[in-house]
Amino acid sequence: MAAASVGQVNIAVIGAGGVGKCFLAQLEQLAARRPSPKLALTYISTSKKAIYSDEHAAIPINDVSSTLASSRQTPLALSQLVDFLGKSGVNTVLVDNTSSQDVADAYPQFLGRGISIVTPNKKAFSGSYQLWQDIFAAAERSGARVYHESSVGAGLPVISTLKDLVDTGDEVTKIEGVFSGTMSFLFNSFAPTSGSGGQWSAEVKKAKELGYTEPDPRDDLNGLDVARKLTILARLAGLPVESPTAFPVQSLIPKELESATSGDEFLEKLPAFDAQMEETKAAAEKEGKVVRFVGSIDVATKQVKVGLEKFDLSHPIAALKGSDNIISFYTKRYGSNPLIIQGAGAGGDVTAMGVTSDLLKVLSQIA
Amino acid sequence: MAAASVGQVNIAVIGAGGVGKCFLAQLEQLAARRPSPKLALTYISTSKKAIYSDEHAAIPINDVSSTLASSRQTPLALSQLVDFLGKSGVNTVLVDNTSSQDVADAYPQFLGRGISIVTPNKKAFSGSYQLWQDIFAAAERSGARVYHESSVGAGLPVISTLKDLVDTGDEVTKIEGVFSGTMSFLFNSFAPTSGSGGQWSAEVKKAKELGYTEPDPRDDLNGLDVARKLTILARLAGLPVESPTAFPVQSLIPKELESATSGDEFLEKLPAFDAQMEETKAAAEKEGKVVRFVGSIDVATKQVKVGLEKFDLSHPIAALKGSDNIISFYTKRYGSNPLIIQGAGAGGDVTAMGVTSDLLKVLSQIA
Repeated sequence: MAAASVGQVNIAVIGAGGVGKCFLAQLEQLAARRPSPKLALTYISTSKKAIYSDEHAAIPINDVSSTLASSRQTPLALSQLVDFLGKSGVNTVLVDNTSSQDVADAYPQFLGRGISIVTPNKKAFSGSYQLWQDIFAAAERSGARVYHESSVGAGLPVISTLKDLVDTGDEVTKIEGVFSGTMSFLFNSFAPTSGSGGQWSAEVKKAKELGYTEPDPRDDLNGLDVARKLTILARLAGLPVESPTAFPVQSLIPKELESATSGDEFLEKLPAFDAQMEETKAAAEKEGKVVRFVGSIDVATKQVKVGLEKFDLSHPIAALKGSDNIISFYTKRYGSNPLIIQGAGAGGDVTAMGVTSDLLKVLSQIA
Repeated sequence: MAAASVGQVNIAVIGAGGVGKCFLAQLEQLAARRPSPKLALTYISTSKKAIYSDEHAAIPINDVSSTLASSRQTPLALSQLVDFLGKSGVNTVLVDNTSSQDVADAYPQFLGRGISIVTPNKKAFSGSYQLWQDIFAAAERSGARVYHESSVGAGLPVISTLKDLVDTGDEVTKIEGVFSGTMSFLFNSFAPTSGSGGQWSAEVKKAKELGYTEPDPRDDLNGLDVARKLTILARLAGLPVESPTAFPVQSLIPKELESATSGDEFLEKLPAFDAQMEETKAAAEKEGKVVRFVGSIDVATKQVKVGLEKFDLSHPIAALKGSDNIISFYTKRYGSNPLIIQGAGAGGDVTAMGVTSDLLKVLSQIA
């Protein structure tokens, strides 16, 4: 067991995929730029590989992805990892760059041992309400910190802003926005504010080819990703939402295609359902509006919902571009004009930025 | 001298005007809601009155404005205040709710004594570059914190977002926006995206009557307020801007009216100059655009400027409503679509909110 090290913070990273690789690049930069506190990467793992040592020796961050690929060590079980990090005697931050429910379920154990957590993983904060309560109770008891800015809107300051509003005593009345880069891209192309837009199935196919969707586009079209984000924001606004399936979520997967055996089969059969989406689009156009896939939280009536809505062409939600997110906070202090945050809400670099800025927050508090 | 008190933070407040009163209301709420750390208001002053005791006894926050009005104590000189707060032995935060250059000039002394500062006062951060350097050097040495979110865009998360971008290693290429609630209101009414808008002098008069301008509207129209905000953001983005007069700032005060002896005389004579503004508006309209008063920072070319610009009707800056601010950050990571923050950028409650959330940040770090 290493002796307590003043001015050092140990970093443990789980996950080295898209976001994970970008985070490691930012961590390397950060460690080089800031002499104090000394940041020591003492554990890193993917689903199959890991690097760590009993002495909690610092792992060179430079090129760690390839070192990891050739490592012969396998990841510690989560309970072992809690123990390994907890007994170092050094302030430690766990960076969870996975989207794993298993890792999320172990947060209360990590936090209970005084290990802080920063993560873009939505699962911990949008799963059962019990897990949410366990996480924050464990942090409260031990004094460990937990931040998850990138779980909504990637690096956009969405969660920190909502917390500031609530913590300074403002009354949030409504939150509304486009919370999915994929859905944003699809509807900005399918139903643009000027021009006629493409066919629905063709736009979904294009989005997949551009890498804007999950491998199976149904994982975006079912609305669950947006529902998870809404669950997180609703809870932060004070509503004890039980789960992301506890409120109405409109799925854009035609019933008949729910059982398609693959994303490819789904895409092949989707054109047969274009007429439905065309109808929705035409109905909006008749009112001089466009259709968008949005989420909203009405705090007073405790209503959370996700689905298609119509917007005037001059509405900021209609005017969105590319795969941008937009989030509007209506509050007592801000009155009729909401506080709006807009920009890229997906992508490795901007998601990792949210994680890195959370890490900086934790460092300013524990080091 | 009081003994060091664990779990207590002393708060000293200078200024109890519009923002100051709103802050005190938020502080009272906060102290009631959060048992730890215990927040003790130990000093409060206006320009003429003060309340404090040698024992640093906590002053009841409830109704403190009226207690203050009937107090027989006068404010301590700033050097005395540094001493008074510094010798309490308790972690202390100075909340400067004034717009005083004198108080700003004393920040390095406060910080040097380990007293943290939160403030909406622009003067300290937009004055001489030497003062800026002295402030952050003093904080660095003592470990005291200094936050000033409300010095730009009131409670909007403008400064925290820019710091996050820079601190996580993003490259900010350009910052552009409408930084004055007064200018926003004036141009949204004078040159709306639909309809013809009012006469310039009439809009200025209306804005003054609605309380949207300084007592003398020339203090808004000279562009200095915007120039101060640009100076702060430019410095945070890494440009060592010497002062708010070190770059081009367009004044909307006709030369002939610079010497008017009062705001009233100015308003009386302004209609004679409406033709100039009408011409500017018509020139923009000819290109299908509207005119707006904006500030911009081009980081690569190190160009900062403040003045009138023309925007397409579909541009977010053109579509702004009421007295909202909008700030766009163009960065390497965010690519062609900027990160945008929009909403009320003035008003007592939202400005105080920025101060209170800064205070919460400091508390999370020092308590």
